[in-house]
Amino acid sequence: MAVITPSRRVRSTPFTPGVEAAGVKAYTVYNHMLLPSRFTTFEEDCTHLKNHVQVWDVACERQVALEGPDARRLLQLLTPRDLTKLSLGRCMYVPVVDQNGGMLNDPVALQIDKDTYWISIADSDLILWVKAVALANELNVKIYEPDVSPLGVQGPKAEDLMARVFGEAVRDIGFYSCARFGFEDTVFTVARSGYSKQGGFEIYVEGHEYGMPLWETLFDAGEDLQVRAGCPNLIERIESGLLSYGNDMTAENTPLECGLGRFVSQNQLEHCYGGQALAEEIAAGGPIQQIRAFAIEGEIPPCVQAWPIYAAGQYVGQVTSAINSPDFQTNVAIGMVAQSHWNDGTAVEVETDDGMRPAMVREKFWN
Amino acid sequence: MAVITPSRRVRSTPFTPGVEAAGVKAYTVYNHMLLPSRFTTFEEDCTHLKNHVQVWDVACERQVALEGPDARRLLQLLTPRDLTKLSLGRCMYVPVVDQNGGMLNDPVALQIDKDTYWISIADSDLILWVKAVALANELNVKIYEPDVSPLGVQGPKAEDLMARVFGEAVRDIGFYSCARFGFEDTVFTVARSGYSKQGGFEIYVEGHEYGMPLWETLFDAGEDLQVRAGCPNLIERIESGLLSYGNDMTAENTPLECGLGRFVSQNQLEHCYGGQALAEEIAAGGPIQQIRAFAIEGEIPPCVQAWPIYAAGQYVGQVTSAINSPDFQTNVAIGMVAQSHWNDGTAVEVETDDGMRPAMVREKFWN
Repeated sequence: MAVITPSRRVRSTPFTPGVEAAGVKAYTVYNHMLLPSRFTTFEEDCTHLKNHVQVWDVACERQVALEGPDARRLLQLLTPRDLTKLSLGRCMYVPVVDQNGGMLNDPVALQIDKDTYWISIADSDLILWVKAVALANELNVKIYEPDVSPLGVQGPKAEDLMARVFGEAVRDIGFYSCARFGFEDTVFTVARSGYSKQGGFEIYVEGHEYGMPLWETLFDAGEDLQVRAGCPNLIERIESGLLSYGNDMTAENTPLECGLGRFVSQNQLEHCYGGQALAEEIAAGGPIQQIRAFAIEGEIPPCVQAWPIYAAGQYVGQVTSAINSPDFQTNVAIGMVAQSHWNDGTAVEVETDDGMRPAMVREKFWN
Repeated sequence: MAVITPSRRVRSTPFTPGVEAAGVKAYTVYNHMLLPSRFTTFEEDCTHLKNHVQVWDVACERQVALEGPDARRLLQLLTPRDLTKLSLGRCMYVPVVDQNGGMLNDPVALQIDKDTYWISIADSDLILWVKAVALANELNVKIYEPDVSPLGVQGPKAEDLMARVFGEAVRDIGFYSCARFGFEDTVFTVARSGYSKQGGFEIYVEGHEYGMPLWETLFDAGEDLQVRAGCPNLIERIESGLLSYGNDMTAENTPLECGLGRFVSQNQLEHCYGGQALAEEIAAGGPIQQIRAFAIEGEIPPCVQAWPIYAAGQYVGQVTSAINSPDFQTNVAIGMVAQSHWNDGTAVEVETDDGMRPAMVREKFWN
C-alpha cells in the first residue's frame, strides 16, 4: 500500500501532531487537507465509536466566510433551501447547486454574527463559485477562508466529555443548534452536529494555535471515558446513510436525486441558482433516479469506483460506497437507482471489481 | 507513515493498474485524483529521469472543456494573457485570475477544434469559476470535464520512445505545440510539454479504455531505453523552477508576484477578470514580493508548510517547496520574498520545522 506524501498543497491541520501521535494508519485528502480515515481497522474504529467517545480532526471541513451587508442575500442565492429560519444559534444543511440544479457541495451554514455567515463545506472548492456569484450579482460581501478548523467529538459519551470541558450548558444545545463557549482566553462556536449518528458535537476552533491545547484538554478530561482519536468511519456513515459529496453525489446529480428534497423549498426556487431546473424536475414528476441503501451479499472489495447495478441484465444504477458491516452482517452500501427499481426489497445485481453480487434495495438505512 | 485510502472521491486513473504494478511507493492527491509522487526514492527517481525516459500518470491534470460559439471569448475573459496567437496546434500557459488578480489556477490551454478548447488544470476546481463566469456573461458555451487523461513521457530519451510508438513525425512537434497522432483505432492530441525540464511529451488520452493499452505499448517499445514508471519529481521540479499551484502560489498571489509577468498582456487587461487590479499593480511599480530560488544550507526536513524567511530578524517572505539536491549539493527551494531582499546573492535565514537555516536568494533556478 502506498503512503501519502504531505506538502503545503496537501495541508496539515492544527490537530495533525495529535493525530500522528495517536498512530493514524490511513489518510484521505479533503479540501486539499489531510483527513484521517483509519486509526486501527474500520471495524475496530466503528465499534469504539458506537460505545465510547472519539475526537475527530475534521479541520478539512473548511469554512467559506461571507461577511458584509449582502452576505445573507448571497447565501440565499446559493441554495434552494429557504433560509428564513437561519438565525444566530442555528445550523442549516444547505445543498448548493449550479444553474442546472447540479450539486456543487452540501455544506452546513451557520450565522456567526449579524452580517457574517460560515459555510462549512464538503470536498470541492466552493469558494470559487461563491466569489463568482457575488461578483456577477454585484454584492457587497467579503468572501474568504477564515482560520477555523472544526474538531469533532462523537459517540455516546460525547456529551459527558464536552460537559467536563465546556460546562454543563453544552447539554442544552439542541440538534443542529450552536452556541458560544469559552476556552482558555477565547471563545468557540460549538454545534451539536457531526458526520456520524452516534451523537456528538463539532467545535469550530478559531485560531490554529488553540488546536493542540484543545485536543489535549479533551484527551486529559476523557481518559476514564475511553476517549481516543477517531475519524468519520466508512462503516458507520454508510449504515447511517450519511452521503459523501464526490462519492455518492456529484454535479451530475440534483438534490432531489440525492433524497434531499426536504431541503428544496418551492417558495425559494425563483430566488436561487438552479431553481428553475429544480422546478422543472418537480413539475415533471420528480427525479427519475434516487439514492438508496443496498445490502450486498458475498465478499466485496473496497469500492473505489462506481459499481454498475443491473436488473435482468439491464443497467439501472450504480453503487458508490460499500463496505462490510459486522454489526448488520451484510455489506452496507449507498447507490443511485432508477425509479423502476428503487422500491424497498427490489432484487438487483451489483458488478463489483471482483464480479457480480446479489443485492437488495432498501428503503431505509441501518442506523 | 500513513497510507492513503482510495475511494470514488479520490479517483483512480486509467493508468492506476500500471502504476500499482510498477510498485508506486507514495501518492499525493491532485484534482480529487491519485497522483504518484515516488516510485523509489526522490533521488533515484530524479537520476533516472535525467538519464532515461519515464512514463508519468498525470491523468490528474484534468481538462475543463469549453465548447461552443463563445468558447474563445470565455477563455479570454479568464486570463490576462493575450490569446490572439492561440490556434490549432499551439499550447499556451494561461494564468487564470480572480477579480483581484489572485491566481486561481495556472493551466495550459489548447485549441482542440474550431469552437472547442481544453484547459489542462492545476489543483483547484477551476470548473466552478469557469461555469459561473460563463453564466454571468450569458455566454453560449458548454463547460464539462471530458474523459481525457494526460500521460507524460519525460526524459532525454522521450523523443526516441515516442517516435517508436507514434512515428518519426513526433520529432517535428515544437515546444508547446501539439498535433494529432493515431493509436489503435483512435487519435490523440500529443503535445511537447510536461512538468520537467528534461524534455518530453504529454499524450492527451481520450477514452479511459485506451489508458492501459497505451501504457503497455510504451513500456514494450522502450525496454532497451530503460523506460520506467515515474512522476513529477520534487527535486527536479524545484531545480527547474517549475511552480506548483497550492504550494508556491495561491489565490493570495498575483501572476506578477509569481514571476509570470510575461503572461500578462497590457492590451488584454481591459478585457479580463482581474485586469484592473493587475494594471494597478503595474502602475504602482510592479509586485512588492516575488518568487525566487533559494539555496538552503544544512539538513532540512520535508517542507509541508510555509517556512518563514528572515533577514536581520525581520520577516521578509516564505519558502514553500524545498528538498535536498544531490546533483547541486545544496537544498533547492522555491519561495516568495520581499523586493528589499530579492536580489541574487542576498543572504537570508529560513525557519524550517527543525530550526533556522542560512540561505541564499538566487536569481536563477538550477536546471
